[in-house]
Amino acid sequence: MNTISKERLAKIKAIVFDCDGVMTDGSVWVLYNGDAIRSFNVKDGYAIQYAVKKGYILSLITGANTQSTVNRMEYLGVKHIYSGCANKMQTYERFLSEQNLSDEQVIYIGDDIPDYEIMKRVGIAACPADAAPEIIDIAHYISPLAGGQGCLRDVIEMVLRTQGQWFHPDAVNW
Amino acid sequence: MNTISKERLAKIKAIVFDCDGVMTDGSVWVLYNGDAIRSFNVKDGYAIQYAVKKGYILSLITGANTQSTVNRMEYLGVKHIYSGCANKMQTYERFLSEQNLSDEQVIYIGDDIPDYEIMKRVGIAACPADAAPEIIDIAHYISPLAGGQGCLRDVIEMVLRTQGQWFHPDAVNW
Amino acid sequence: MNTISKERLAKIKAIVFDCDGVMTDGSVWVLYNGDAIRSFNVKDGYAIQYAVKKGYILSLITGANTQSTVNRMEYLGVKHIYSGCANKMQTYERFLSEQNLSDEQVIYIGDDIPDYEIMKRVGIAACPADAAPEIIDIAHYISPLAGGQGCLRDVIEMVLRTQGQWFHPDAVNW
Amino acid sequence: MNTISKERLAKIKAIVFDCDGVMTDGSVWVLYNGDAIRSFNVKDGYAIQYAVKKGYILSLITGANTQSTVNRMEYLGVKHIYSGCANKMQTYERFLSEQNLSDEQVIYIGDDIPDYEIMKRVGIAACPADAAPEIIDIAHYISPLAGGQGCLRDVIEMVLRTQGQWFHPDAVNW
Repeated sequence: MNTISKERLAKIKAIVFDCDGVMTDGSVWVLYNGDAIRSFNVKDGYAIQYAVKKGYILSLITGANTQSTVNRMEYLGVKHIYSGCANKMQTYERFLSEQNLSDEQVIYIGDDIPDYEIMKRVGIAACPADAAPEIIDIAHYISPLAGGQGCLRDVIEMVLRTQGQWFHPDAVNW
Repeated sequence: MNTISKERLAKIKAIVFDCDGVMTDGSVWVLYNGDAIRSFNVKDGYAIQYAVKKGYILSLITGANTQSTVNRMEYLGVKHIYSGCANKMQTYERFLSEQNLSDEQVIYIGDDIPDYEIMKRVGIAACPADAAPEIIDIAHYISPLAGGQGCLRDVIEMVLRTQGQWFHPDAVNW
Repeated sequence: MNTISKERLAKIKAIVFDCDGVMTDGSVWVLYNGDAIRSFNVKDGYAIQYAVKKGYILSLITGANTQSTVNRMEYLGVKHIYSGCANKMQTYERFLSEQNLSDEQVIYIGDDIPDYEIMKRVGIAACPADAAPEIIDIAHYISPLAGGQGCLRDVIEMVLRTQGQWFHPDAVNW
Repeated sequence: MNTISKERLAKIKAIVFDCDGVMTDGSVWVLYNGDAIRSFNVKDGYAIQYAVKKGYILSLITGANTQSTVNRMEYLGVKHIYSGCANKMQTYERFLSEQNLSDEQVIYIGDDIPDYEIMKRVGIAACPADAAPEIIDIAHYISPLAGGQGCLRDVIEMVLRTQGQWFHPDAVNW
C-alpha cells in the first residue's frame, strides 16, 4: 500500500467518499428533536470545491440520512449526493452508469465495513489513518491523517498534483 | 487484567453500558434552555446496531437524564434504555430479572464511580482507557481506546469475534 | 510547586474556580443569535456535585456572561455562581466576607490573566496543565490535566482525599 | 523563519487574520437550516480584546460568510470585520488604504491557499503549526500552536511583548 502508480492515479476522474469517519472524526451531535449535526473540516472543504471547479466528478455516498451533511455538500458544489443509502454498492453502480464511468476511473475514500464492497472494486481505495482494521487491510492508500483531520484534502491533493491540477504559486488561475 | 478467558467471553449474552465517558469523551454541551446534548461515535454506533441485529441484548444504564442519548439509542435499535437512574444497581437488577439473565452473562462497560458496584458483579467488567482510577483497578478489561474514541466498538468486537459473530469478508450476511 | 503541604490542604473549605479554560478546554461555540455555548466535562461534574454533598463551599467566578455555564452550575448544585464579573477580585472579596472565609481556606483554580490577582491571595492557587505562562508561574499546584480534560476533578479529588472525604469502596456512604 | 527581527516587529500596527483554521481548528458545525457555527478559543479572545484596548488595529478577513464569526468579533471589540470575501486581496487593499497603513505595518495570520497572496505582501506573515504546506513555505513565523489551539494568542503576545504592551504583573493597568 501507499505505493500507487502514477498510471493508476492518472486515470481518476471521479472522487467518491463516505461522510462519517472520513469527512468527520466520526462524531455526531444528537439534538433533542432527534436531528444529528456534524462537524466538517474546512481544509477538506477547500479541496472539494477546488476539485469541482477543476472539472472532477465529486460524489458523497453515505448510509446516514442527515440534512447537515447534504447542506455542507451543496455549499461546496458537490452535485452527486446520495444520503440514507441502505445499500451503498447499489448506489455506486447507479452512479457509475449515470456518469458513464468505469471502476478504474474512481477513487473512493471510506473508513468502515459498509464501505468494504465498493473499496474492493474501485481503481483506488483510500482510507483515513484511523479506519477500521478490515478497511486498512484492503486500502491501496492509507492517509497519514485521520477522519475529519484533513484526510480527504490529502487524497484530493494527491490526485490533483499527479494530474498537474493542484494549486501552484506560479500558475495564473487558482 | 486484559486476559479474559474465552470461556468467560463465550457466556456473554448482554452488553450493558454507561453513556458519559464511555459512548462519549465525557463532554456535554449545555444549551441556553438547560438541555445538554452529547456527541456520539459512529464506529461505536455501527457495532451497537450490528450486535442488536445479531441477537445480543443491548442496554444503556445512565444517571443522566437526557433526550439526546435516548434518541441515539433508539436510532441504533437499543431496546433497554434506562436514563436518569439515581441508583444504577437497582436498575441493573431489574434488567437482569426482566431479561432472565445471570451476572456472568453480562459484560458491562463503565468509566466512573457510579459504575463501581455493577462492575464488581458482572461476568466481565470493561472500561475505556481514561476511566477513573477506581474503575481501572477493578476492570477485567481496559480498552486501549478512550471514551468516545471507539472503546465500545472495541469491546463489542471482542465479544462478537470470540463468538464468531463479527463481520468476516467471506461470510454471506453482514 | 506541586508540593503542597497537608497542613495547607487541610485548611481548605471552599473550592472556587474559573469557567473557560478550567471547566472547558477554552472553546466557545458561538450561535447565530450571539449566544455562546460551552462543553463541560462529566468527570469534573461528578466531583463538583460530590464535593457539594460533602459540605464544601463551591463557587464559580467568571468574566463571561453566559446562561450555558449558569445552567451547568445549577444542575451540579453549586450555589455561589458569579458570572459576567468585570472585576473578579471584587467578587472574590464579597464572596469571602459573605461566606465568612479567610484566604487560606480557599483553593482557586484559574488559567489566565484575569485570574492572576485572586491566585496571588488564596491559600492554594491551582491551574490546568495548559494555563497561560503567567499563571503557571504563580500556581502552587499545576494539574497534569488540561482545561476541560478533568483538571477540576483532579484538584477536587486532591483536596477531598487529603481530608478523608473522597470515595472509598469500603465506606458506607458515597 | 521564526527569526523575525525586532525591527520588523516594532513596525506592526495592525493585526489581520483569517478565521477558519486560525481562530478555529478548521471545524464547522453545519446545522439543519444550513447555518454553520464555529468554536472559538477563549485565550485567543483574551488577546484580541486586549490588543484592541491597547490601540492596535485588528481586522478579520474571511472568505466564509457566517454570522457566528461576526458575532464573536463584535463581542471582542474588533471593528474591521470583512466576511464573505471572494477576493481577499481586494479587501486587504481597501483596508490598507482606509486605515492609511502600509504593508510593513501589518502582521497577517493565515493558514491556507486563499491567504497566499496577502501573506506574500505583508510585513510579517504568520501561520498556525498545522497550516497548508504552501503557507508554511512562505510564512515568516510558524506558531508552535495549531489553529484554534491558541496560535492567535501566541502571535498577538509576540507583537505586544516586543512593543512592551503585553500584561506585566508589576504594571498598573492591565
